[in-house]
Amino acid sequence: MRPFRLALAQMNPTVGNLTGNADCIIALVEEAKAQQADVVAFPELALTGYPPEDLLLKPQFLAEAEMQLERVAGESKGIVIVVGVPHLVDGSVFNLAKAETPDSMTGTLYNAAAVLAGGRVLDYYHKLFLPNYGVFDERRYFTAGDTCPVYKINGVSVGVNVCEDIWYDNGPTTTQRAAGAEVILNINASPYHQSRGVQREVMLSKRAADNGVFVAYLNMVGGQDELVFDGQSLVLDPAGLVIARGPQFEESLLVVDLEVSANRSAAASNPSLNPVGVAKTILVPSSDISRARQPVAAPMSKPLDELTEVYRALVMGTHDYVKKSGFTSAVIGLSGGIDSAITVAIATEALGAGNVTAFFMPSQYTENQSNDDSVQLTDNLGVRLVTLPIKNLFDQYLGELAPLFEGRQPDATEENLQARIRGNLLMAASNKFGWIVLTTGNKSEMATGYATLYGDMAGGFAVIKDVPKTLVMALSRHVNVLAGREIIPESIIARPPTAELRPNQKDEDSLPPYSVLDPIIEAYVERDWQVSEMLEAGMPPDAVELTIGLVDRSEYKRRQAPPGIKITRRNFGRDRRLPLVNKYRPSSKF
Amino acid sequence: MRPFRLALAQMNPTVGNLTGNADCIIALVEEAKAQQADVVAFPELALTGYPPEDLLLKPQFLAEAEMQLERVAGESKGIVIVVGVPHLVDGSVFNLAKAETPDSMTGTLYNAAAVLAGGRVLDYYHKLFLPNYGVFDERRYFTAGDTCPVYKINGVSVGVNVCEDIWYDNGPTTTQRAAGAEVILNINASPYHQSRGVQREVMLSKRAADNGVFVAYLNMVGGQDELVFDGQSLVLDPAGLVIARGPQFEESLLVVDLEVSANRSAAASNPSLNPVGVAKTILVPSSDISRARQPVAAPMSKPLDELTEVYRALVMGTHDYVKKSGFTSAVIGLSGGIDSAITVAIATEALGAGNVTAFFMPSQYTENQSNDDSVQLTDNLGVRLVTLPIKNLFDQYLGELAPLFEGRQPDATEENLQARIRGNLLMAASNKFGWIVLTTGNKSEMATGYATLYGDMAGGFAVIKDVPKTLVMALSRHVNVLAGREIIPESIIARPPTAELRPNQKDEDSLPPYSVLDPIIEAYVERDWQVSEMLEAGMPPDAVELTIGLVDRSEYKRRQAPPGIKITRRNFGRDRRLPLVNKYRPSSKF
Repeated sequence: MRPFRLALAQMNPTVGNLTGNADCIIALVEEAKAQQADVVAFPELALTGYPPEDLLLKPQFLAEAEMQLERVAGESKGIVIVVGVPHLVDGSVFNLAKAETPDSMTGTLYNAAAVLAGGRVLDYYHKLFLPNYGVFDERRYFTAGDTCPVYKINGVSVGVNVCEDIWYDNGPTTTQRAAGAEVILNINASPYHQSRGVQREVMLSKRAADNGVFVAYLNMVGGQDELVFDGQSLVLDPAGLVIARGPQFEESLLVVDLEVSANRSAAASNPSLNPVGVAKTILVPSSDISRARQPVAAPMSKPLDELTEVYRALVMGTHDYVKKSGFTSAVIGLSGGIDSAITVAIATEALGAGNVTAFFMPSQYTENQSNDDSVQLTDNLGVRLVTLPIKNLFDQYLGELAPLFEGRQPDATEENLQARIRGNLLMAASNKFGWIVLTTGNKSEMATGYATLYGDMAGGFAVIKDVPKTLVMALSRHVNVLAGREIIPESIIARPPTAELRPNQKDEDSLPPYSVLDPIIEAYVERDWQVSEMLEAGMPPDAVELTIGLVDRSEYKRRQAPPGIKITRRNFGRDRRLPLVNKYRPSSKF
Repeated sequence: MRPFRLALAQMNPTVGNLTGNADCIIALVEEAKAQQADVVAFPELALTGYPPEDLLLKPQFLAEAEMQLERVAGESKGIVIVVGVPHLVDGSVFNLAKAETPDSMTGTLYNAAAVLAGGRVLDYYHKLFLPNYGVFDERRYFTAGDTCPVYKINGVSVGVNVCEDIWYDNGPTTTQRAAGAEVILNINASPYHQSRGVQREVMLSKRAADNGVFVAYLNMVGGQDELVFDGQSLVLDPAGLVIARGPQFEESLLVVDLEVSANRSAAASNPSLNPVGVAKTILVPSSDISRARQPVAAPMSKPLDELTEVYRALVMGTHDYVKKSGFTSAVIGLSGGIDSAITVAIATEALGAGNVTAFFMPSQYTENQSNDDSVQLTDNLGVRLVTLPIKNLFDQYLGELAPLFEGRQPDATEENLQARIRGNLLMAASNKFGWIVLTTGNKSEMATGYATLYGDMAGGFAVIKDVPKTLVMALSRHVNVLAGREIIPESIIARPPTAELRPNQKDEDSLPPYSVLDPIIEAYVERDWQVSEMLEAGMPPDAVELTIGLVDRSEYKRRQAPPGIKITRRNFGRDRRLPLVNKYRPSSKF
């Protein structure tokens, strides 16, 4: 028997762009047809983009999505299409806003994989496991399915399921395997964070081997607000070995031949004691694919190293946020420090040097080295540098406020004022020229509140918001390695961090050294460690207390911050939802 | 048999203030004991405050909450205490952040009503219905319970359940009634919005009458970030009649005698075809309450009229956000318009005239009437007025930016610049004096983006963010009616709305009249109407198209806005979660 040919469309949809996403899907279906695939698959909610959030509450949005799905279904002649869509059942009045009370809501919405064949919608698989933690809110919208279909396609039994479903030992995969599935097709919108790829691969290998099935794991690519989907789709054989790997952070149509018949003898059933969902088998009308095919070589991209992976996530996240928001150009305030340097480097990679403008806005506290370094950096990148001194504006503000502030000493007020003048100048340029302002604060600053609201926090997108300072430093060196030349001047990398908002200011005057601070932030913000756990791990008590206090007191700033790209296991944003009014301060006795 | 005495503690906890909330609970227990109540009840999650959000993911927070619960339990001698708490079962490693993959999470957290008696925790009721829509995210944290206990307390059978549980016809109330419950005690943290009180009362009356039981509905009071809990606890008899009503927006201990034995003959069972949860009966050790008691008269507060209700919600929301955040004083930018006028009036009511400072910051486009009206308003309120002209600063910015802007015409850039200078001056005062900045934008502006990010949107709390302009106008007149004198000058109320950012500017140059705009915003933002529904309702097509476009394009501004008080069925904030990158534009064909 000839191999089963799977085409995995690792695509980059845009949330809400129903017609555009459908156009893109149809073009990829044509490409898969040309490659004589038996099945072409698209990611979770590929038609709407992921996550569509409260667009899913709009009946009109669901109706328009359904119309586009019908259009895609029309292309399913001679090929089976599997595509992620929202599926509304009995839902003419699905809509919380119209329901006066919770019990009067009607209609049921599923996170579905539509199976299209013979020119029409043949069936829907409804996702069973709905993540509602971290950045995910799927139970806000969706009801869990209860059926685990197996589709008989051109002689091969294919179990389809969606994203989270594959993460459970005793999930739909097991039920589908027991019902005869030989191939599991799992469509995803799985966001990137560091080490996520390795976790996925370990899990998928176990899932394939435990069940003795081929597992095809298809992931989305692209940036959507805080999230970056990293692609790296995987196909594993029934022994759990990776036989195909898609590229990271790139669109790709992966075409893979599965030698299903050769593995039939090996496919042992893995009986489940508590099967999830009800199995059903659906015969898919055979497509006319009797023609001989040339075998294809499975794509096998090389995984990126850790630093390159983060860098590419930041570049793609920035590119997609800026472009999908309708901007072409960006403006960035350069301070002479490492954070703004790496931000401008990432923006240049994402948007092109001709689309990036750097503002250098010195005050009386700015050292000459900051100027020299900014010139060098923008020269290296080929980026336009605009210098706008803020001293006169600062003096004018001080003059206007002098009567009100009479008798008061200078304090953080005057520091914030400088940052806010800079924010105003950047925003004025943004308004006048249609540039998006990219902010330059890192995760260590966001955590501790070492940033000025409406000042250096003013902007549309915060590129390195989830990158701790120690990682910023490592990435800065890596940018030069990747380029094979000096992009970020060594003098910027080597210089002790400073905000330059008062004479001789250094970050470490106010904060613990970053090598001490960053692990505390990770423990407290990303891992919810108890205080006692931090102390037992050897973190200095004073630094722990200071850091926790700063993190807790800065929530109000973060709430008004622009979004930034998630690269850690828990970012500031949808991933971490704390009240603003919050009197909880962890006792040091726990 | 003597009546069953219930004490409902309509309290105002603070999120995270575990020790403080427990102290407050204990004080109210003492008061209930003094009044010889059989049971004293506290709202949903009263111990932690509601909603505690991701504090619930911190093992240390849960451990500290449990410790405080033990302290409260110690007071349950001679009285039964029912109090809302998170309840962690088998949870030594409950913590998503520590679980590498979803299937490795362990521990189960419930939204519970702890029943305390005889000095210890006797039992926990676990909420069955977990709202995960609108402002609610309970499935992010909690697992649904499956048991509907009835507690036999001093001879009376009491079914306890939590908030959402009471909204379902066939919910725990029905199961508990079938198991013999004579009184249903339902503890809530139910946020206010307009018309919510009437909805609740209609539902509760039906629930009581259908089941032939007393229903005691206890609600929290107080502000927490965007939410205001309005109190107005209710007790209904088995005929569905309201026999006690708590005050709105005020703490209160409601003591009510229920003539349970007199109603025994009337209590008909309401058999459920599909009972929810498993019934169980628990005998509570009787308390020593053999002493004779004087009967108490049930409290019966008068419900507020619609405008007063909104006004009181805004005052309490502002008071609690400011005070619970640790501020005592506020500063507000006055424009001479109605929005800033009502904001300063609300702030004065909430914080006291001595704690409010108004900044009047005229530009060259500001008319004299704005000055006169601001003086009159602050005189009426007894609030300090500081005048800070911005012309010099504006000219200085224009001069600094002139080389960059050469050849460009004035546009929104220059308008935004004025708003941002004002934002900077307010923030400078905030930093210097520790005042919170209250912003003055209304819902119509938030919806259409008719506001400047980092300008008039800069501040800690947005008092009237969820109040449409037409309601702002009605409220402004009502403020004068409530005061019995002119607080907001008639000239402010009568003046056509203007931003005064260019010569002779009027809101209606850019926006439809508010009487046309506000219903479109309600239909689109709060009710998710399709375009065709709006047109069928007679909304002008041009205004519909313009408004939808403005709403959709302003999402990025709202994401960086300060929180404000929810008073409508859907506010901008937790209630409405739209992607920033979003290419969906509703087709006018639907």
